Amino acid sequence: MKPIAVILSGCGVFDGSEIHESVLTLLSLSRAGVAYQCFAPDRDQRHVVNHLTGEVAEGEQRNILVESARIARGEIQPLSALVVDDFAAVILPGGFGAAKNLCDFAVAGAGCEVEEDVMAACRAFTAAGKPSGFLCIAPIMLPKLYGEGVKGTIGTDAGTAEAFTQMGGAHQDCLVTDIVVDEVHQVVSSPAYMLAGNVAEAAEGIDKLVQQVVAMCQR
Amino acid sequence: MKPIAVILSGCGVFDGSEIHESVLTLLSLSRAGVAYQCFAPDRDQRHVVNHLTGEVAEGEQRNILVESARIARGEIQPLSALVVDDFAAVILPGGFGAAKNLCDFAVAGAGCEVEEDVMAACRAFTAAGKPSGFLCIAPIMLPKLYGEGVKGTIGTDAGTAEAFTQMGGAHQDCLVTDIVVDEVHQVVSSPAYMLAGNVAEAAEGIDKLVQQVVAMCQR
Repeated sequence: MKPIAVILSGCGVFDGSEIHESVLTLLSLSRAGVAYQCFAPDRDQRHVVNHLTGEVAEGEQRNILVESARIARGEIQPLSALVVDDFAAVILPGGFGAAKNLCDFAVAGAGCEVEEDVMAACRAFTAAGKPSGFLCIAPIMLPKLYGEGVKGTIGTDAGTAEAFTQMGGAHQDCLVTDIVVDEVHQVVSSPAYMLAGNVAEAAEGIDKLVQQVVAMCQR
Repeated sequence: MKPIAVILSGCGVFDGSEIHESVLTLLSLSRAGVAYQCFAPDRDQRHVVNHLTGEVAEGEQRNILVESARIARGEIQPLSALVVDDFAAVILPGGFGAAKNLCDFAVAGAGCEVEEDVMAACRAFTAAGKPSGFLCIAPIMLPKLYGEGVKGTIGTDAGTAEAFTQMGGAHQDCLVTDIVVDEVHQVVSSPAYMLAGNVAEAAEGIDKLVQQVVAMCQR
């Protein structure tokens, strides 16, 4: 089986990829014996947030690729280098980075746009008949990527679910330990830290998502 | 059972806590039903390393506590606030942060010194008859903390093992999936990314270490 691509959006829940979700994704892939390669856009983050205070660090700039490299232990490539043909599937962990750096949902809400390179990569996987996985807030991009009626979950948060619906998606409420599968687009989503009360809970849904994506690769 | 304290040293393998090791420690604790609290020293890191290039980012400063907060999702306290009586044990993940920010082994080798607050916290756990766990390069501090003959492992790296011995420790070679226990000081160590070829391998030894520390708390 070809490796799976993992698209990161920085390093830290408030301005980048949620670290636990990212590591748990890599752990599940590694335990399944599936190789992976991390990617991230090579541009500045929307914000840098001090994770101790929760405040935006005014005037500070960090690069998404450089910070994502922390999670990937240096083994990462720019998103521009992603060749879809070389990978079996793609997975996008959550964290505010998904809603700030991969799209602008965190600031624009239902009127958000997905970054062009992220959109192109995700759509190319689907066009090639390959599955994809979206965790936490990352599924908010699904209606923009796949249009009317795409099924996905961001858990049970009423406001976010309403935005998902308003954007044309068919939102499904989902437990933290479960997944939602859209068979048409081969898209799997799971709430992770949209709902998880602790890291063990997050791990359960993430592991289920990874196993589902891997199973869809092997069909 | 009281919660377990986890001492972090930043966020990223080259200048802080190794992220996978830290998350896997929290995951094992969470799965064991043991609460945890993260702590980190509130001072600047020795270096900031660009994890994409591996180069030191000259002139850039980051605070150990603020960066560690990324791994802890904001739920972290300064090491100065650690009250040993409130915790059952302490665990220190690895990463170069352990050898740059908690002690200076990365620059001083066998002549290294452990930071005073780290030394005081670790020794207080031992003095109170409480167990502790050290991952990856963090066990290099053991001879400085506990003196002649303390048993520990940093895996099989000859140079580091020699430094451990030179500092007075009794180094034990150890597989990535295994642990070394010093019953006198109730100290458990495991090689993690000193040896791990992938995150699943690291997880196996870390889970064993966490389970051993938890079991020692319940004696």
